[in-house]
Amino acid sequence: MKLYYAPGACSLGIHVLLEETGKPYELSLVDTKNGGQFSPEYVAVNPKSKVPALDLGDEGPVLTEWTAIASYLAAANPEAGLAPKDPLGMARAVEAVDYITGTVHPHAFTRQFRPHMFSGREEDHPKAVETARANAAKYFDLLEKNWRGDTWVLPAGFSIADAALFFVEYWHVKRVGQSLPPKLDAHFKAMLERPAVKRALEQEGLAA
Amino acid sequence: MKLYYAPGACSLGIHVLLEETGKPYELSLVDTKNGGQFSPEYVAVNPKSKVPALDLGDEGPVLTEWTAIASYLAAANPEAGLAPKDPLGMARAVEAVDYITGTVHPHAFTRQFRPHMFSGREEDHPKAVETARANAAKYFDLLEKNWRGDTWVLPAGFSIADAALFFVEYWHVKRVGQSLPPKLDAHFKAMLERPAVKRALEQEGLAA
Ligand SMILES: N[C@@H](CCC(=O)N[C@@H](CS)C(=O)NCC(=O)O)C(=O)O
Ligand SMILES: N[C@@H](CCC(=O)N[C@@H](CS)C(=O)NCC(=O)O)C(=O)O
Repeated sequence: MKLYYAPGACSLGIHVLLEETGKPYELSLVDTKNGGQFSPEYVAVNPKSKVPALDLGDEGPVLTEWTAIASYLAAANPEAGLAPKDPLGMARAVEAVDYITGTVHPHAFTRQFRPHMFSGREEDHPKAVETARANAAKYFDLLEKNWRGDTWVLPAGFSIADAALFFVEYWHVKRVGQSLPPKLDAHFKAMLERPAVKRALEQEGLAA
Repeated sequence: MKLYYAPGACSLGIHVLLEETGKPYELSLVDTKNGGQFSPEYVAVNPKSKVPALDLGDEGPVLTEWTAIASYLAAANPEAGLAPKDPLGMARAVEAVDYITGTVHPHAFTRQFRPHMFSGREEDHPKAVETARANAAKYFDLLEKNWRGDTWVLPAGFSIADAALFFVEYWHVKRVGQSLPPKLDAHFKAMLERPAVKRALEQEGLAA
C-alpha cells in the first residue's frame, strides 16, 4: 500500500489510521504547495488532483476520498478496531467522519486557508477568512454540545471518526493558533498521546 | 422510519433508496425555502439544520449525512442489493457517493443555487454562478472520462452511487436546463426508468 499525502493536509488523518493498523505501507509526498497535484504523474494516480489517495497494491487499485479510504481501512482490518462492526455503529462513524470531511473541512478550513477558492476578489479575502473562522467556532460548538462519547467521538470507542476530528483540531490549534472547547480539547490531547499519532506527525515533520 | 426531506433537494437520492428497499417509511417535509430547517422542532431532529435526516424508528435514533444514511440503508437491507458486499466494492461505492456529496453538490450546485453562501457581494453572484457552472462541466467531464460501469456507476451493478449521481444529474438537467455528456445522459435516462425513481419523483411532486 502507498499513501499519497501532503504534510499536515487532511491526509494526516489517513496516515494516522494506517499507523493504527500496524500494517506495512509506503508514503509518497505530493507537493501541493507547488502544484504537484496537477502533474501528469499524479493526475494518473488521482484525476481529481487531491490528497489523500491510497494505492491498495495487492489489495486493489487506487482509492480516493477520505471517507471511502477510512471505511475501507476499517473494513479490511477488522482486528485493528477502527470502527464498530454493526450497521448502525458503522453508520454513526461515517456520519461523524462525513460532517468533518464534507462540512468542517471545506467551510471552516479550506475557506480560511485558500480564500481565493471562495472569492475572486483579493480585497474580499479577509471577509472570507472571517466567515470561515465563525464557521469553525460554530461547528466545534455544535460538536461539543452533541458530544456522545467519553474520550473518543463514539461511545463505542476509538474509530475513524477520531482520526477525522483530529486533523481539523490540529489545523485549528497548531496552524491557526485557536483554542478548542473543553471536550474537544481533551480529545485533541488524548489523540496526541496515541503512539500512531506521534509516529504520523514525526514522519510528516510536524510538531506534536 | 421517517425521512425528513425537501422536494427536489439532495434528500431525493435517499428517498429513491428507501423506495428501492421496498420497506415502509414515512415522509416529513422540511420547508427549507422558508427556513423550516431552523425551526426548534427541526433543530431537535438535526442540529445541523440540513436535510436529509432519517429517523430510524425501531432501528435507532436519527441519522444524518447523505453518505452515512445511504451506507446504512445498504448494510441494513442486504437483500435490496444497494451496494457490493466486499470491503473494496463497498469502498468504491462510498468513493463515488462522496465525490458527489462532498465535491459536486457543494462546488457545482450549492454555489450555483445559493451564491450568497460563497460571496457576500450581490454584484459578485453572477461570477459565483459562472464558476459553479464551469465546475459542473469539469466534474461531469471527469465522471464521463473515468466511467467504469456499464449502465450503472459501478461495474458490479446498481448501488447507492447511482442514487447520488442521480440527484445532481436531476438538478443539472431539470433545474438548470443543461445537457449531460453521453454516458451520464444514458445513466440519467436509465434512472428515470426505475420504478423506485418514478415513485419518489411523484411523491415529491417533481417532473420525470
Ligand atoms: N473530497 C476529498 C477532499 C480532499 C482535499 O480537499 N484535499 C486537499 C488537502 S487537505 C487537497 O488535496 N488540496 C489540493 C488542491 O485542492 O489543489 C476527500 O475527501 O479526500
Ligand atoms: N452534509 C450534508 C449536506 C446536506 C445539504 O446540503 N442539504 C441541503 C439540501 S440539498 C440543505 O438542507 N440545505 C438547507 C440549508 O443549507 O439551509 C449531507 O451530506 O447530508
